[in-house]
Amino acid sequence: MSAESADATAAPAPTDNDAAIVGLSNQIAALGISISEAKAAKQPKEEWDPLLQQMLALKVQYKSISGVDYQAPNTTNTTKKEKVIQEDVASEKNLEKRAKKAAEKAAKEEKKRQQREERERREREKLDKLKDAADANWSHVFGDAPMIQSKFKSEEGSNRWTKIGNLCKEMEGTQVLVRGFLHTSRGVGKGAFVLLRSSLFTVQCVAFEGRKGSEGDDEKSEIPPAMIKYMTGVPSESIVDVYGTVTVPQNPVEGATQSQVEIQVSTFHCVHKATAAMPFQMEDACRPDLVRETDVGAYDHEANQTSSNESGGRVGQETRLDHRWIDLRTPANQSIFRIQSMVCTLFREYLLSQNFIEIHTPKLLSGASEGGADVFTLDYFGKSACLSMSPQLHKQMAAACGGFERVFEIGPVFRAENSNTRRHLCEFTGLDLEMAISEHYDEVLDVLGDLFVYIFDGLREKCATELERVREQHGFDDLLYLKKTLKIDYATGCKLLREAGIEQGDLDDLSTENEKKLGDIVKEKYNTEFFIMDKYPLSVRPFYTMPDPNNPQISNSYDVFIRGQEILSGAQRIHEPELLEERARAWGIDLATIASYVDSFRNGALPHGGGGIGLERVVMLYLGLPNIRKSSMFPRDPRRISP
Amino acid sequence: MSAESADATAAPAPTDNDAAIVGLSNQIAALGISISEAKAAKQPKEEWDPLLQQMLALKVQYKSISGVDYQAPNTTNTTKKEKVIQEDVASEKNLEKRAKKAAEKAAKEEKKRQQREERERREREKLDKLKDAADANWSHVFGDAPMIQSKFKSEEGSNRWTKIGNLCKEMEGTQVLVRGFLHTSRGVGKGAFVLLRSSLFTVQCVAFEGRKGSEGDDEKSEIPPAMIKYMTGVPSESIVDVYGTVTVPQNPVEGATQSQVEIQVSTFHCVHKATAAMPFQMEDACRPDLVRETDVGAYDHEANQTSSNESGGRVGQETRLDHRWIDLRTPANQSIFRIQSMVCTLFREYLLSQNFIEIHTPKLLSGASEGGADVFTLDYFGKSACLSMSPQLHKQMAAACGGFERVFEIGPVFRAENSNTRRHLCEFTGLDLEMAISEHYDEVLDVLGDLFVYIFDGLREKCATELERVREQHGFDDLLYLKKTLKIDYATGCKLLREAGIEQGDLDDLSTENEKKLGDIVKEKYNTEFFIMDKYPLSVRPFYTMPDPNNPQISNSYDVFIRGQEILSGAQRIHEPELLEERARAWGIDLATIASYVDSFRNGALPHGGGGIGLERVVMLYLGLPNIRKSSMFPRDPRRISP
Repeated sequence: MSAESADATAAPAPTDNDAAIVGLSNQIAALGISISEAKAAKQPKEEWDPLLQQMLALKVQYKSISGVDYQAPNTTNTTKKEKVIQEDVASEKNLEKRAKKAAEKAAKEEKKRQQREERERREREKLDKLKDAADANWSHVFGDAPMIQSKFKSEEGSNRWTKIGNLCKEMEGTQVLVRGFLHTSRGVGKGAFVLLRSSLFTVQCVAFEGRKGSEGDDEKSEIPPAMIKYMTGVPSESIVDVYGTVTVPQNPVEGATQSQVEIQVSTFHCVHKATAAMPFQMEDACRPDLVRETDVGAYDHEANQTSSNESGGRVGQETRLDHRWIDLRTPANQSIFRIQSMVCTLFREYLLSQNFIEIHTPKLLSGASEGGADVFTLDYFGKSACLSMSPQLHKQMAAACGGFERVFEIGPVFRAENSNTRRHLCEFTGLDLEMAISEHYDEVLDVLGDLFVYIFDGLREKCATELERVREQHGFDDLLYLKKTLKIDYATGCKLLREAGIEQGDLDDLSTENEKKLGDIVKEKYNTEFFIMDKYPLSVRPFYTMPDPNNPQISNSYDVFIRGQEILSGAQRIHEPELLEERARAWGIDLATIASYVDSFRNGALPHGGGGIGLERVVMLYLGLPNIRKSSMFPRDPRRISP
Repeated sequence: MSAESADATAAPAPTDNDAAIVGLSNQIAALGISISEAKAAKQPKEEWDPLLQQMLALKVQYKSISGVDYQAPNTTNTTKKEKVIQEDVASEKNLEKRAKKAAEKAAKEEKKRQQREERERREREKLDKLKDAADANWSHVFGDAPMIQSKFKSEEGSNRWTKIGNLCKEMEGTQVLVRGFLHTSRGVGKGAFVLLRSSLFTVQCVAFEGRKGSEGDDEKSEIPPAMIKYMTGVPSESIVDVYGTVTVPQNPVEGATQSQVEIQVSTFHCVHKATAAMPFQMEDACRPDLVRETDVGAYDHEANQTSSNESGGRVGQETRLDHRWIDLRTPANQSIFRIQSMVCTLFREYLLSQNFIEIHTPKLLSGASEGGADVFTLDYFGKSACLSMSPQLHKQMAAACGGFERVFEIGPVFRAENSNTRRHLCEFTGLDLEMAISEHYDEVLDVLGDLFVYIFDGLREKCATELERVREQHGFDDLLYLKKTLKIDYATGCKLLREAGIEQGDLDDLSTENEKKLGDIVKEKYNTEFFIMDKYPLSVRPFYTMPDPNNPQISNSYDVFIRGQEILSGAQRIHEPELLEERARAWGIDLATIASYVDSFRNGALPHGGGGIGLERVVMLYLGLPNIRKSSMFPRDPRRISP
C-alpha cells in the first residue's frame, strides 16, 4: 500500500494540543463565572463548591497539558499562545467588552454541554432497560441488531431490501424488508407508529400488541408488549430494519411520502443507535420557512445561531451548519444536493456532446498572488504559492495554446475575500469552459445559451420530485426562461435602466442593486429571468479581455444572469501577445509579473473565449434560495471552516 | 459584475516585485561569472567590457526597485529578503557549493535567453520581408489575416470550417476551409507542401507555382511565386486557414493521418503567427520513445532537462513540462488527455446509473493537520487551516450520516510529500466514492469491479484512435482484464509470493516491489492485470477501518491493482462511535483530536464503505506510461509548481 493511496493515509479529524488547551481554558473561565454569579447571589457554599472542585481539577489538567499555570484572561503573565490571541484582540476597540462576551459565550456553551450530557445519560439508562428486555426473549423479532461488520452475507445480498421510495400500492400483500432513519415514533394505545425515512421518502410502519405480524403468516408470533415499548423507545434518527407486509390503508397516511401504503411490522431491529441528543428536532428542521429571508445585505452569523425553541420551531442556518451531517437529512436538503449533482451532470452531458473534453488544472499556483489580497497563500517546499482563484490561465493554455480547442472543468475555486454576505463563499465549485472560436465570440454565447436551456429543461424533466420537496420547505416560483436565449448589449441594458428612472451610465460599472433592477425590467419586458448581456465597458473587465473592434471603450465580454444576479462572467480573450502587453500596460500592470502568461501565446494560439460559472449560485438562484450556504454542502465563509 | 464572478477578477499570471528583484539578482550574478571567466581566460577588455557595462546598468536598476545596493551572495550586509533565502540555504550542508551551482545555472539560463532572442530577431526580420511581399499584391489569396476580434461573422459562421479529422475520400472535389497549426512546411521545386494539424489529425495541403488553385474553378487565379514563398516561410506552429479542393492522391500521403486525401490550396492565410523560437521541434516531441523508461526508483529532474539535440532527437520530460502548452499538442498528449477525460466520463456514467450522486466537499479544512507532515497548511482569516488530503470525512458524512447513501466526487487531492519519484504528485485528481452497505462490504467490491470493467470496455470502444496514437509514441500492450473481476484475499496473495520464493508474512505490509511481483504472478496464473485484494492486516490500515469480525488481526479493507500497482485503496469504515474510539486509542491517537469526526456518528449512521482512486495513476497504468507526469496536464511535484 503506497503513501499516495487516496484514502489510506488520512486520519481525518483535525485539531491539536492547542485545541485541548483552549477548550480547558474556556471551561475554567465558564466555571469561574458560574461560581462568581452563585457567590454574588449569596447562594450557600454547598451549591457552588462542586463547581469549585471541578475548576481546580481542570486547572491541574490545564497545567499538565500546557506546562504553565492557568491564568485568567487580561493578566500580564500570559502564555505565548494566549498572547497571540490577545494581540489580535487588542487591535480591536473594545477589549474588555469582547473578553466578557467570550466568557459569557463559553459559560453558555458549558451549560448547554452539561444539559446535553444529562439528557444523554437519561437516554442511555432508558435504552439499557429496553435492551435487557429485548435481549431476554425477543431478539429474533425485535431488538438491537449486532453491528454490521460484514460477518453475514445472505444469498440475495442487498437485493433483499426494498427502497422506501419504491413502495407502492401494487405491492400490497408482499413481504418487504426496508432500512431507514427512524424519523418519528409514537405509541398510541397498544400500537406503535414509526415513520421510517430514506433519502427523500418516508413510510409508516405499524404494529399492534397481540396482533400477528402479518395476516395469514402462521409462523409469525403475536406482537409482544415489549416490542411496542421497544419500537417507541428507539431514539429518533437511529437506523432501523423493518420486515413486514405492505398494506393499503383506507385513508392516505398523512405526513408520509408513500402515503398510499403502510408496513405491518413483523420484525423490528435497530441497526445503529443514535446515542447523542439531537441538537435540533428533525421535524423542526423540515418545517416550511416562516418568512422569506432577504438575500441582500450582510449575513449575520449570530442571528442565525438559533435553536428551534428560540425561533418559532425553525432552526437557524448556523445551527444547521454546525451539525450539517444531520441537517443534510431533510427532504429539502436531500433534494438540493441531488439537483446540484444533476446540474453538473447536465453541464457535462451538453458540453461533451459539443466535443468539449474535461480537464483538471492545478489549484496550487506559483507566486504570491493572482491579483491582490483575495488570495490564500501557502508555503510550497520553501517557495511561495497560492490557491487558484480561477482556472483561467490553464484552461486558456489547454484550449487555445495546447490545441484541445474545447475544454471544461468542474473544480474548487478559492477566494480569500472577507465578505460576510448571503452570496459569497470562500471556496466554491467553478464550472468553467473555454473554447476556440472560428470567427466571433457569438459562438461561445450560442454554446452558453443552449447549455443553460439544456440544464433548465433537464432539471424540470429529471428532478420533478426533488423540486417539489424544495418548494415544500422553501417555496419558490419556477424560473422563467426562453428556449432561444435573450441577448442584449450593455448599452441597451443601461438604457432600459435609465428609462425606468434609474441612473446608469453606458460606461459605468453595474452595481449589484442595478443588476437586480435590470433583472426585473427584463422579466417584465421579455418574460424571462435568464438572459445574456454582452459588450461591457472595457474598463470594468480584466486586462486580457478582447477590446471591441469598432469602439475602443467597450469589449467583447459578457455576463449571464439568473433572477437578476450574475452567474457567469466571460469574454473573448486576447490571443495576440503584443495586444496583451499593450492592454496590461494600459492597466498599469508590471509586464514582468505576467511574462509567462504572455509567453504562452507566442508559439501559436487559437482565437478563443469562455466563461466561468458558480455552481452554488446557479442552484441557489434556480431554486430561489435566500442564502448560498443552502446550496453548498459544507460551506466555507470567513467565519466557518468546519465541519 | 460582482467580485465573485468566476473569472472576471483574476489577473492570471502570478509573481510580484520580489520576483523582479530575484531575476535581476540572478542576471547580475550571471554576468559577474561571465566577466570573471573572461578575465581568467585573459581575454581582452573589449570582449568583456560590454558585459561589465550591462552589469552596472542592472545594478542601478536593482537599487531603484529594491531600495538597496546589490550585494553579491555570502556577504554579511544582506537585505531582509536575501537573508531569508540565505538562512534556508544555511540549513543545508554545502552552502558554498549550492551558491556556485545556482550562479552557474543562472549563467546558463542567461546565455540561453540571449541565444533565443537572437534567433527570434532573425525570425522576425525574415517574416517582415515576407509580409511586405504578401501585403503588396496578394493579400486576398495569401498573407497574414487581420486579428480575429469578432469583427466579422459570416452567414454560415463556424460551420464554414471543415474539421481536419473529418476529411475523407468521399469529399473528393469539394471545396473546404480548414484551420490548424502549421505542423511542417517544405518547398520542393516550385511547390509548397504544408502539413496542417488539428487535435489528433493532420492533412497535407499543396500548392504549385502557376497552377490554378483548383481545377475547373475559373475565378481562381494562378498561384504566384510569392505565395509559395509565403507558405514555406510561415513559422511552424502558427495558426493557418487553408481554403482549397479535396483531392485523392495516387499514393497515400506519408506522415499525414488523413493519408487518403490532400488539399489543393486556393487561399492560405496566417491567423495567428508564432513569433517566439520553438524550445524544441514538434517533430522531435512526437518521435516514438527510443528506450523504455523505467518506472521505478527516483525521478531525476536534471536528467530530464534535455533538448532534442542532446538526446537523440528526443525531448526531455522536464523540458516538455517547462513548455507544456506546446508539448500538449503532440498527438500522443492530445490522446492521453482525451482518454483521461473519458475515464472521468465513464466513472460518472457508471456510478450515476447505480444511483450515486456527485458531491463537492471542501478542500480547505480546519486544524493544522490531517495526519502529520504531508499536509499543506495555510492561514484562514487568522485561523490555521490545511488542504484536504482526501475527502474521506466529508464523503462519509454525506453518504453514511447525511443519508445520501451513495456519493462520489472528482476533485483535487493535496499531498505535501517530498518524494521525487515517477509515481507521486503533490496535487492529483481523486476519484472518490462512498456507499452505504446493507450487509457486507462485498457490495462495494461488486460496484468497484464492475465500474473498472465498464471503464476499460468503454475506453476500448470509444477511444480506439486515441489509444493507437499513444501506442505509436509510447508503445504499450493492451491491459489484460477479466469480465468478472478477480478477487483474492491478502493471505492468498502472500502465499502466492512465498510460493514464488519471495519473503512475505501474512501480517506484514506489502512493499511496492512485492506488489509488482504479485502482479506478475497473478497475471501468469489468472491471465489478468487487474484484480482486487481484500482482508489486509488491520495494523497497516487507518484506524477507522472496520476490523474483520472473525480475526482481530485483519480488516475489512481492500486495494485494487492495475499492472501490479495500487490504484485504489478502501475499506468498510467503522460506523460505531465506541469502536472508533477504541481503535483510535489502540493507535495512540488523542481522542480530543478526532472528537468531531467521532461525533458525526452519534446521531445515527448507515454502515458503509468506499475507496479513493488516483485518476492520473489509472491513466498512467492503463496506458503503461512510465511517468505520472505524462498523465497529469500540469503536474505538481516538490520541484515544480508551474506552468
